[in-house]
Amino acid sequence: MRILLTNDDGIFAKGIEALHEALVTRHDVYVIAPETERSAVGHAITFLDPLLVKPVKRNGAFFGYACTGTPADCVKLGIAELMQPLPDVVVSGINLGANVGINVLYSGTVSAATEGAILGFPAIAVSIDSFQPQDFTAATDTVLHLLDVIEHRGLPRGVCLNVNVPNLPPEEIRGMRVTRQGNLTYEENYERRVDPRSRVYYWLSGSVSFAENSPDADVRALADGYISVTPIQHDLTHHGMLAELRRWGLEKPAAPFPLAASAS
Amino acid sequence: MRILLTNDDGIFAKGIEALHEALVTRHDVYVIAPETERSAVGHAITFLDPLLVKPVKRNGAFFGYACTGTPADCVKLGIAELMQPLPDVVVSGINLGANVGINVLYSGTVSAATEGAILGFPAIAVSIDSFQPQDFTAATDTVLHLLDVIEHRGLPRGVCLNVNVPNLPPEEIRGMRVTRQGNLTYEENYERRVDPRSRVYYWLSGSVSFAENSPDADVRALADGYISVTPIQHDLTHHGMLAELRRWGLEKPAAPFPLAASAS
Repeated sequence: MRILLTNDDGIFAKGIEALHEALVTRHDVYVIAPETERSAVGHAITFLDPLLVKPVKRNGAFFGYACTGTPADCVKLGIAELMQPLPDVVVSGINLGANVGINVLYSGTVSAATEGAILGFPAIAVSIDSFQPQDFTAATDTVLHLLDVIEHRGLPRGVCLNVNVPNLPPEEIRGMRVTRQGNLTYEENYERRVDPRSRVYYWLSGSVSFAENSPDADVRALADGYISVTPIQHDLTHHGMLAELRRWGLEKPAAPFPLAASAS
Repeated sequence: MRILLTNDDGIFAKGIEALHEALVTRHDVYVIAPETERSAVGHAITFLDPLLVKPVKRNGAFFGYACTGTPADCVKLGIAELMQPLPDVVVSGINLGANVGINVLYSGTVSAATEGAILGFPAIAVSIDSFQPQDFTAATDTVLHLLDVIEHRGLPRGVCLNVNVPNLPPEEIRGMRVTRQGNLTYEENYERRVDPRSRVYYWLSGSVSFAENSPDADVRALADGYISVTPIQHDLTHHGMLAELRRWGLEKPAAPFPLAASAS
């Protein structure tokens, strides 16, 4: 297949290099990735600034394009301008650090895959549960396997797969679990400091204070030594609240609205 | 009520000033907002850089705190460090430009409200469907009305309201509609240019190519002259695909997995 490969750790990261190396053995891979680390940029896109693009070599050979934008920008630009013919699938990763629970929302890695899905392409985001992984084999093999599945079955339009891999040798991984985005809560703190020019600044720190224990939660599957595969979409509506808000009378006619309502 | 007020157009934007002016007539308002425009940053958060915070005056009086981070950072920092006692509700806006359809995902305005909801606070994001609005009255009255509703009824934990207001005088607004995030597709283009130093760069442009016509879609309600109110949550799981992926055999035992599976 023809693959658009991106990430959020930047084009010079180890994770994208390892994934590229594995993918090119079977697929036609086109890299467009941020020129520097863009972790936790979420689904940011760039339209108030221009995007610069430049070719990057690794080990003396052309590797791909570095872009000044976010992971979602890379996917948009790759599909709209740089990649002809268009890709069959968008792959994002390998991210260092798990993207499970609420981190799915903050993750540039996942947002690149979601952007691919929004534009109508099947997509996979892949992360490994370590900031210093020794071995990417389980992650790269998982992506190759899921690409086979996607080639065979496709994915419904608008859906992508968020894949998280334990930081274990392949033989110690217990298998794969189809999961949902679990509940994961952080106890967050900001450390207050004063700079040499007397300006106050804050560093975000935090640690997990609650991790859901249900076996179909991504966070639990990963902690149990399974690869988690979560199908992701981009509708943020809380559908259960629609009827409830109507019951509250929000749609009640009031003329002129909302002046009459708020004057009550 | 005690309100944490933020936005993504920056603390010096007209929209937050108009909303502040309306809210202080009835509520205790605490402003912490980005020091510059952070549109389309999505749910970006900052942890690789520190956040600087400084007090800002408007019309000679203390107005609030400007922060070097994103809208979501402002909410996190406001709640974790700056605001004691904690807010009753988080309000984000008034954003210039509608946040309906897929723009909900890109929007810093909505992400600030979502972050409030993630942290356990009821929240409202409000946008007006114009980049050059003449009159914020309909938007400010709507927020005041919804704050009364929230004070009376609360919101379930994790839910926030994404409110979009037509750019019309209040008497021409047809009412309020409870909506879901509609389908909105862009025809996107990147305009390729060459800078004076011969570097290639791209500007994103685009126009709406498809807008859903269903009456409960946010984009349609807004176009029809209604205020749209969409309940938003942060679970991106495509729940309908969970059983489907299991049917595909992804969880099938294979030892050692995934080596065995991908070698097939």
